[in-house]
This record gives sequence, structure tokens and C-alpha cells, in this order.
Amino acid sequence: MNEREFIAALRALPLHSGARGLYDDAAVLEIGGETLILTHDAMTEGTHFRADADMADVAWKLVATNLSDLAAKGAEPVGVLLSYALGSDDERFLAGLREAMEEYRLPLIGGDTISATGARSFGLTAIGRATYTPVPDRSGSQAGDAIYVTGIIGRAMLGFEGVSEHRAAYDRPRPLLAEGHALAPLVTAMMDVSDGLLLDAWRMGQASGVTFEIASDLIPVADPARRFDCMRWGDDYQLLFTAAPETNLPVAATRIGTVVEDGFAPIRLDGELIADPENLGYTHS
Amino acid sequence: MNEREFIAALRALPLHSGARGLYDDAAVLEIGGETLILTHDAMTEGTHFRADADMADVAWKLVATNLSDLAAKGAEPVGVLLSYALGSDDERFLAGLREAMEEYRLPLIGGDTISATGARSFGLTAIGRATYTPVPDRSGSQAGDAIYVTGIIGRAMLGFEGVSEHRAAYDRPRPLLAEGHALAPLVTAMMDVSDGLLLDAWRMGQASGVTFEIASDLIPVADPARRFDCMRWGDDYQLLFTAAPETNLPVAATRIGTVVEDGFAPIRLDGELIADPENLGYTHS
Repeated sequence: MNEREFIAALRALPLHSGARGLYDDAAVLEIGGETLILTHDAMTEGTHFRADADMADVAWKLVATNLSDLAAKGAEPVGVLLSYALGSDDERFLAGLREAMEEYRLPLIGGDTISATGARSFGLTAIGRATYTPVPDRSGSQAGDAIYVTGIIGRAMLGFEGVSEHRAAYDRPRPLLAEGHALAPLVTAMMDVSDGLLLDAWRMGQASGVTFEIASDLIPVADPARRFDCMRWGDDYQLLFTAAPETNLPVAATRIGTVVEDGFAPIRLDGELIADPENLGYTHS
Repeated sequence: MNEREFIAALRALPLHSGARGLYDDAAVLEIGGETLILTHDAMTEGTHFRADADMADVAWKLVATNLSDLAAKGAEPVGVLLSYALGSDDERFLAGLREAMEEYRLPLIGGDTISATGARSFGLTAIGRATYTPVPDRSGSQAGDAIYVTGIIGRAMLGFEGVSEHRAAYDRPRPLLAEGHALAPLVTAMMDVSDGLLLDAWRMGQASGVTFEIASDLIPVADPARRFDCMRWGDDYQLLFTAAPETNLPVAATRIGTVVEDGFAPIRLDGELIADPENLGYTHS
């Protein structure tokens, strides 16, 4: 099975209502008088990081990717559970983990430590508390909304390729917790850009049952000569969101298009309808 | 680092108060007027299961080990987040996962699906709701308490070795959720036996600052000719607990000893003080 087939099969299992049909990056759990946000991201050697990566960067990134999911929900972090496979460079991992936990005031709640042979995997479950309800999801975009993205897209790609000024964007991405918190009450839909701007916009358009009309030349890219590569690469962890066009935004963001009634495809890019998400971004084969 | 060293290093990170100093199998989170129990267990090929294992059994066991941690807290399951590495036998994994989820009425909340190369790892974060507070932990055993264990110890070992009548004990362990629920209000300390009865008793004695006087011939073992092997093997997921000796127990359990004042070691087995946990059970090197 590929990732999409497997997730489709998971949807046939008994799902918690807070799972939102597994169409979202994080689950929303109403507990007592609170709304918790739960997310889990895993990273594995060879797929998510190279064997020669600095484990301090890997640890940072593991925290950042999970916190980015919380950011997209406007949630503030409560703590994390770590799943760790012992290796030869545990000190570096711990150093990066400490930096990220201190930076985001993130306490450790628990987890599991195992011995593993071969390629190593790490996982993190992050728990957050919603700061605003209803919690933003991918499905609320409405015709007439403006489409926005924060920051610059493609920096992680260039950093991965070794461009020194963008290395930090790839090695040490910054989850936009404050931005997500500020935006949550104002957006109609929000998600973090982890798998590529076009793919994530396609998913949001599909979940909302609308078409995202996007003009590629409006998208803020790190390298205009490689605009379409930037739009297809993930790992930037910027926030993609829609809001009524008259909304006063409390954070810097670039308008990249407009939501229109469903025109038979989730995206219309430079006038061309895109019905098939293949090649729009990163998917696990 | 080995597992113990790594966990010691984790204790130097910012810890959530609910982490209980990482001395417990599960975290306890007070949120919104509820008490949540959170636990994460991971399994990896080569260490926790063989490459030729039936993935349906692996999935079942992944669920069962996590629910066993909830059982030891007297918690009822709320749901799980799955961390899954795609492979060639995803259908079998899904089949076992479905069986376990249906058996324990356990909804899926979310998770992550990744591609991995080499040995595969799976993780599960289980969330439960405490049915009784204070939530049992390992540290409440008091001098004079009776020490009990449920069921028979060593069946998983024999099942692992291929003894057919014990195969299910190894392949499909049963988390004792109903038993944990019934015992939670009555025990002074409780944990599940995952790493070996002696090692887990040693840990409970140490956490409680007392000595567990245990008579080996009282321990209900699957093979009396290999009593000490049974006492050192894990994976049985029975419940080990202490309670005042006059307590009327609502579940079947065998008394294996008595808690006494700290005699300089967490365990006194057949009269011999055991200060060093080496060789008492399974630890990740």
C-alpha cells in the first residue's frame, strides 16, 4: 500500500469523532471543559533525515514539525511524549531536544525508549490546548475568501540543497505558534505547509469543497527562477489559511489568490484546473 | 547510552509535572476537570518482533502493551494515535489492529504514516481517562502491605519458545483493563508486569522506598521447573500490586509476599536482599 491507500484503510477502522475522519493534521478532543489538540509525527533515517545528519537538528525538527501542527490549530503546547530509538549519538539528539523544548517552553510528559537495529525512527506525540474554538480545520474555506500564506516558500528546499543562507530553514524550522494563535479566531481554514504549498492548497480546497484560484506569480518564493520547485517542496512549515477579504490580519502574510465555487477541481492555478494531486508535492509512496 | 542512561538524561530536561519524573509507565495529566492518562509504546523489528512475525499479532501486541499501561492506572481507554511505517504486509497489520480496536472498543484518534527503509518500527500513543483518583502509581507501597500478582507468570516466555498452549499468551496478550479498573481504588501501588516480575517488583520497591519480601515458591509460574526463568521474563502483562492485607480483592490474584521497611534493597527474595536490578528481567542495552 502507499500512504494514501493505507490512510483510506485506516478510515474503515473505528474512528474517534475527534479524528475528523483523518482528514486533518491533528485530532481535536473535547475533555471536560477543555479542547485538546493531539498530533503525532514520526521521522525515519533515509526518508526524513540522512544518516549523517546532526541528530541535534533531527531532534529540533521532530519537535518543530509537531508544534507546527499545533500552530495550525491555534493551540498552545502542553507537552510531548517522545519515542526514541537508541543509537551512537544520543547526546546530540538530547542537546537538540533540549534547545527546542526550552525555546518553546515545552515540557516532556513521557514516552518510550527502545533499542533498534538498522535505520532509526523517532516519533513525537504533541499535546496542545486550543486557544480558540471552533478549532480551525481545512474544511471551512468559502467562496469569496482570500487565500494567504505566511513567510517565503522554498527556503527549506534551498537549505536542503546546501545554500548556506537557507540551511537553518531546513535544519531548524520554526513552528509559527504565535502566528497560529493570533490567526485562529479570524480564519475560515488553516493548515501548515509541510508537504508543498500546491499539494496542501489542493487538500484544503478539496476538504472545503471549493476551488482555490491561485496566481503563481503572487506566491512569495525563495528563488523566482525555480518558482514551481518552491511551490512543490515541503518542509517550510509556513501557515496557509483563508479568511474573509476584509479581515485585518494580525500577522504578516501574502495573499496568493481567492476561493471560488467548486469548479470541478480543488485548485485553479494560473487559470488551469488541477484535479489530480500527483506531482503537486511530497507524498509517501 | 543504554536505556537507563538515556532516561536519566531525559530527566534533566524540562519535565511536565504529570510525567511523574519519568519513573512511571504512563503520564497523568489533569485537564479540564478530568484526569487523563497518556502512554506511548514502540515496537521495532528485530527487538520486539521477528521479521517473519504475523503483522496482525504485532498490531495486536502494540495495542495490548499500551492498554496494559492504562490498565495499571485503572484507566478506561479514550483512543489511540498510531505511528506506522509502511511495508509489504500492511493488510495483516490492519487486520490485527482492527481486531484489537474492536475487542477493546478503542477508536483511532490520529497518527502518522511514513515510508521507511530497513527494520520497521511502530508506535502507539494511548489516551485514557482515570476512573479513580488518586491514580495508582509505583510509589505507594507501605510496610505491612500484601504483594499480589494476577494470573500466571512465564506463559509468554513459553509461548515465545513455541509451546503451543502458550502461544496466544505471547502473540496476543490481553490487557487487564477490567481488573485494573476494579483494583484502582483498593491498591497502594500498581503496575503491569512487562519486563519481568522480579525486575518490576524491584522497581516498585525502589519507587516506594520499601523492601518487597517475596517467596519465590508462592509465585504462580507456568513451568515450575523453570521458576526463575519465568520470574525474569516479561511480556505477560499481568498486574503487580500491593494492598493492605485485609483488603477484599475483587479480582483473582496470588499473594507472593509482604512489604517491609526498607532493608537497604528494594527486594528480598527468599531471604536474600537484591540491591542490583541487573539480571532481574529485560532491559534495553
